[in-house]
Amino acid sequence: MNQLSDAQVTIVGLGLMGGSLAGALRGRCRTVIGAARRAETVEKALECGLIDGGTVDVASSVHKADIVVLATPVRVILQQLADIGPLLPQGCLMMDLGSTKTQIVNEMERLPGHVQPLGGHPMCGKEVSGIEQADPALYRGCTFILTPLERTSKAALALGWALAEAIGAHPLVVEPGRQDFLAGTLSHLPYLLACALVGTADATTSADSAAWEIVASGFRDTSRLAGSDVSMMIDILLTNREEILKALANYQDQLHGLARLVETSAEDNMRAVLSTFRDKRREMFP
Amino acid sequence: MNQLSDAQVTIVGLGLMGGSLAGALRGRCRTVIGAARRAETVEKALECGLIDGGTVDVASSVHKADIVVLATPVRVILQQLADIGPLLPQGCLMMDLGSTKTQIVNEMERLPGHVQPLGGHPMCGKEVSGIEQADPALYRGCTFILTPLERTSKAALALGWALAEAIGAHPLVVEPGRQDFLAGTLSHLPYLLACALVGTADATTSADSAAWEIVASGFRDTSRLAGSDVSMMIDILLTNREEILKALANYQDQLHGLARLVETSAEDNMRAVLSTFRDKRREMFP
Repeated sequence: MNQLSDAQVTIVGLGLMGGSLAGALRGRCRTVIGAARRAETVEKALECGLIDGGTVDVASSVHKADIVVLATPVRVILQQLADIGPLLPQGCLMMDLGSTKTQIVNEMERLPGHVQPLGGHPMCGKEVSGIEQADPALYRGCTFILTPLERTSKAALALGWALAEAIGAHPLVVEPGRQDFLAGTLSHLPYLLACALVGTADATTSADSAAWEIVASGFRDTSRLAGSDVSMMIDILLTNREEILKALANYQDQLHGLARLVETSAEDNMRAVLSTFRDKRREMFP
Repeated sequence: MNQLSDAQVTIVGLGLMGGSLAGALRGRCRTVIGAARRAETVEKALECGLIDGGTVDVASSVHKADIVVLATPVRVILQQLADIGPLLPQGCLMMDLGSTKTQIVNEMERLPGHVQPLGGHPMCGKEVSGIEQADPALYRGCTFILTPLERTSKAALALGWALAEAIGAHPLVVEPGRQDFLAGTLSHLPYLLACALVGTADATTSADSAAWEIVASGFRDTSRLAGSDVSMMIDILLTNREEILKALANYQDQLHGLARLVETSAEDNMRAVLSTFRDKRREMFP
């Protein structure tokens, strides 16, 4: 079985990411089975037409699977790899959607030999969570990072690649440490910055009744990530701690430099520095 | 003359804000005249149907105006108030769109007695600039802060209020110092945070060719304001320096607290703090 169209895909965890993946895959593989902790979640996924079948019993959902995708918070993934691995049939591809990869790939090394492991991290999301927010178009156009292990067969990598393409994403193979470094600065750091902005406004301007009448799109966008799912983010912060602390230290240096520019009112320097940032931002998003 | 529909409105400065205002007002007052430094800008505004007439000669554009709106960077506004004020006809309403208000209102106090001054700050914008980006819908739904002076007549305030409503904005009277405090945290601070994020990514992850392939919507939104017009932002930073430095100090404290949470991996605290931020963000933008 190497064709995605013939595969039974089981998705463990039917939140925003798992539910959206299920909906995007349905019709592009033989069957999409969803497994969730709560019966209401499974019912909701069935109601919304996101899955062909579903259950709260993970064991029964995976024993005939060709592909299993773990769509839970990172530390739950780490536990599920150990728990679910031994239940998988011969040759089954086991993927995940976790936002940090080093610890997950280390745990994947310990999977039984008959399982094919492949780390995954789709670079998309929303500041809302839950099956109610699931959107089969979520993955369209995003980069889907794949982190194969030495033991991962070419056929298994090709199947994971096909899955990413089937949902409209662009697969990209990246080494786990490098992905965690990049995601630390480009994805996890912005979450903390948004939280600190909400914290600042809450501690100071919120006491003024006019504050929320005057808040504009700039604040809304800069603070958006603070609404992210907390359990997901805690697992990310705990499993990518070193890279995130380095990114934070770099950021604090940058901000300190900007504060100095404002303090000294050094207009020429200010213009040079801010023009560079403006040009870089425009290069990044033309 | 107290009716907006009878008024000749002259807009000085035809960038994003001035061009958009012109387009939004056209048809809602007798005539919209645009004044810009460069002839090409005036031509472009005429071509796009944003103004009824235009000129590079500010003096000739204001001498018959019922309302003059200064839509230039804050320090240019400060200069124009002194230069243009004496040229205005009896009873003319002089407004501005500057993002900081204390210095502007102080300068407005010095306008000749026959002029009616009214500070303004519409809480909207884009991370792009120039007449090419002008959009008559820009002001729709935004809060338009008005800062009347003691000398401002009720009729002049009512006319400014009508102008804000005519372009689809919600007028709100706020005292200048309070507006600068609120805008410092809710608008100017987010700009600096976005710049520091671009600076961090540029200094670290940019060297990795995969960086811009994996960048997701979170980074895009959090960094958006770094693309703002530099001249406009420099004037804001220089004329709201004290409030911005206080907001930066508060922000640095918040971020330091978050860094400590990550460092100590104190999960219970982390969950409490991040849940509070998530709830507050959701309250702010339900």
